[in-house]
Amino acid sequence: MISREQCAARDAADPLARLRSLFAMERADAGGLIYLDGNSLGALPKATPGRLREVAEAEWGEGLIRSWNSAGWISLSQRIADKIAGLIGALPGEVVVADSTSINLYKILHAALAARNINRVGILSERTNFPTDVYIADTLAKQHGLELVLADTAEIADRIDDRVAIVMLTHVNYRTGYMHDMHAITRRARTAGALVVWDLSHSAGAVPVDLHRAEADFAVGCGYKYLNGGPGAPAFAWAHSEHIAWMTDTEWRQPLSGWLGHAAPFAFSSEYQPAWGMARFVCGTPPVLSMAALECGVDTVLAAEAVGGIQAIREKSVALTQLFIDLVEQRCAGHQLTLASPRAAAERGSQVSFAHPTHGYEIMQALIARGVIGDFRAPDILRFGFTPLYTRFTDAWDAVDRLRAVLESGEWRDARFSVRAAVT
Amino acid sequence: MISREQCAARDAADPLARLRSLFAMERADAGGLIYLDGNSLGALPKATPGRLREVAEAEWGEGLIRSWNSAGWISLSQRIADKIAGLIGALPGEVVVADSTSINLYKILHAALAARNINRVGILSERTNFPTDVYIADTLAKQHGLELVLADTAEIADRIDDRVAIVMLTHVNYRTGYMHDMHAITRRARTAGALVVWDLSHSAGAVPVDLHRAEADFAVGCGYKYLNGGPGAPAFAWAHSEHIAWMTDTEWRQPLSGWLGHAAPFAFSSEYQPAWGMARFVCGTPPVLSMAALECGVDTVLAAEAVGGIQAIREKSVALTQLFIDLVEQRCAGHQLTLASPRAAAERGSQVSFAHPTHGYEIMQALIARGVIGDFRAPDILRFGFTPLYTRFTDAWDAVDRLRAVLESGEWRDARFSVRAAVT
Repeated sequence: MISREQCAARDAADPLARLRSLFAMERADAGGLIYLDGNSLGALPKATPGRLREVAEAEWGEGLIRSWNSAGWISLSQRIADKIAGLIGALPGEVVVADSTSINLYKILHAALAARNINRVGILSERTNFPTDVYIADTLAKQHGLELVLADTAEIADRIDDRVAIVMLTHVNYRTGYMHDMHAITRRARTAGALVVWDLSHSAGAVPVDLHRAEADFAVGCGYKYLNGGPGAPAFAWAHSEHIAWMTDTEWRQPLSGWLGHAAPFAFSSEYQPAWGMARFVCGTPPVLSMAALECGVDTVLAAEAVGGIQAIREKSVALTQLFIDLVEQRCAGHQLTLASPRAAAERGSQVSFAHPTHGYEIMQALIARGVIGDFRAPDILRFGFTPLYTRFTDAWDAVDRLRAVLESGEWRDARFSVRAAVT
Repeated sequence: MISREQCAARDAADPLARLRSLFAMERADAGGLIYLDGNSLGALPKATPGRLREVAEAEWGEGLIRSWNSAGWISLSQRIADKIAGLIGALPGEVVVADSTSINLYKILHAALAARNINRVGILSERTNFPTDVYIADTLAKQHGLELVLADTAEIADRIDDRVAIVMLTHVNYRTGYMHDMHAITRRARTAGALVVWDLSHSAGAVPVDLHRAEADFAVGCGYKYLNGGPGAPAFAWAHSEHIAWMTDTEWRQPLSGWLGHAAPFAFSSEYQPAWGMARFVCGTPPVLSMAALECGVDTVLAAEAVGGIQAIREKSVALTQLFIDLVEQRCAGHQLTLASPRAAAERGSQVSFAHPTHGYEIMQALIARGVIGDFRAPDILRFGFTPLYTRFTDAWDAVDRLRAVLESGEWRDARFSVRAAVT
């Protein structure tokens, strides 16, 4: 049996441990709260409130409209994009930060549709992909007379054939944490003549991603999960330089052809002329306050570079998720929880999901009442996210200890835990 | 000649004067700064930094993911939308707040295209409409095989005929401040069987708008101008209840079919089922920090209700713009400035533009150096925005006094004023 002391020893030896001080965890710690939901909303970086105050009071309040120049608001999104580029194996200038993941996916799928082999009829995705990806792809497939094919996870690779135009996958599945082999899938798609769009929402800042080495075509991702950018933070989009080249050569426009994606926005021309390369994926005026918070979040991930960077994050992530699986299986046996995440670390992102056949919702609510915050995904999944920047080995131990108490006591049967919240 | 004392007397008698204390103007006042660019970026409400701190530190930092329920993040955008509805003659539930003006226009034009008379071939707009509106309409016109017709301002009404499917206009022109007669244009369009989409970016919070009484079809608008929502604040969209009815009956989806516009987002179904009515115009997760700032901004406009509301705002706006025109024409004569805004108050929004044939940019830069912030719009427009919530009659007087000094001294000829900034 793994003891709490062993976990404390691992925390003491953890090279990333000091990064926890970058986050506002004092209140959580004082209240005995354990936060295992950074895969849904990353924790608050300590730097963010001060930066928001600076942006609001000094830049907006005093600088007023001048801050587009004097405070660099006009280049803020590109500065953040270049930082994110370094986390996903992209080059500066290849990433834009704008809008939401859903909207960026819409733009990027349009680009993929423009670049595809026009003899191909299908968009291939995963049945359990995050719904927004499926909905956006479905809408575009209908518009373009293509077929959206949703396959089971294990079938994806075999379904990539010469009818498939675009393979659109989320690298790490939001429900199970299953992580696709980006290099193998991309290679297979390339060989078959299909393009690949990766959604990195559950990858960026959590697992190593090297889009160029994988020879991927396009990617999008989220700013508010492992990038700690705050609720509803702006999202990012990427295209391989070969696609940026044809976009530029053909003056191709993405459909959300807003004024800030124009080659010369301040010429206020009535003729749309897309900006060079990826800059055309910008649409309207960026939400500066949310952008500023996103930058603080991205900076917390960059801070790990001094202690091993994304490789060290990944090593700790694997260790944390493995520990959590082992502890639940050791200490919560006999309560119908079955592992819904891959047992093989190489196939697992930075979360662990367990299924419960009948009362997953109630068990999660009771666990939250005991101060362990994970979340529930219908119909049967209890999700636990592990963010190596601030999650400790003892957090995993304590969380399982409380989960065991919830299960052993049967307290989740209390009627108050079955009241459904608006957001689950 | 109008004296400064007369202006001070008007400030003393102004029922809106006390609303200025809702804004963080102390530093501007201490530095002698006069802000006449609220038509580009509204000033900072005093409540905003504290609210941002509360959202960041308490709601995000301590509440973490739970704040989607406990702090009401999930209903935040609808709460703001219902407040905006009251400012534009819409009913609660008919407005959504999300994304940017450009993106909302894209969604709304899709709705108008779905609702249009399919025998009609044209989208009619104004040649000098804000570029993003023209670009988005152009992209959609090309996609749908329609013709985008751009007419001169004076011709618009006469160009509405039985070939026009959609009339898309910005109510108040961003360059000149020219305000269309919303009721007359909409009536004409209705009679001709065309639909009307109004962009209220320069109207909401500045001039009375009654979309229902005008029998308009659709509208969009901006959160960061007269609504004081902060740089890049989320935008809004509206549809008449008759359109909401057919959307709901037909399960029509807007193209940005993101997960939060789903009828049951937390069911995580792989089948897209649009939410009832306007809620389907939501796409991805809302940027909560920017939303919170927007609410503070909208609240400053609602605070005017106790002192006459939008009618009082409009009366002061007309008085301020008329004063500014009179003063410039009295005191800056002989310097080649010609009024580019309508002389008739009924045709003018809350801004005044003057054209200069050769050196508008340099004159504006020199004026900014003297602490009067307006802006320049290529090729020849000096723009001055008047926000009755915080602009005083003495501000208009002092601004013209400094403009006169810039012109009389010829100091704008200094080489430093011809250096082009990234954002003009």
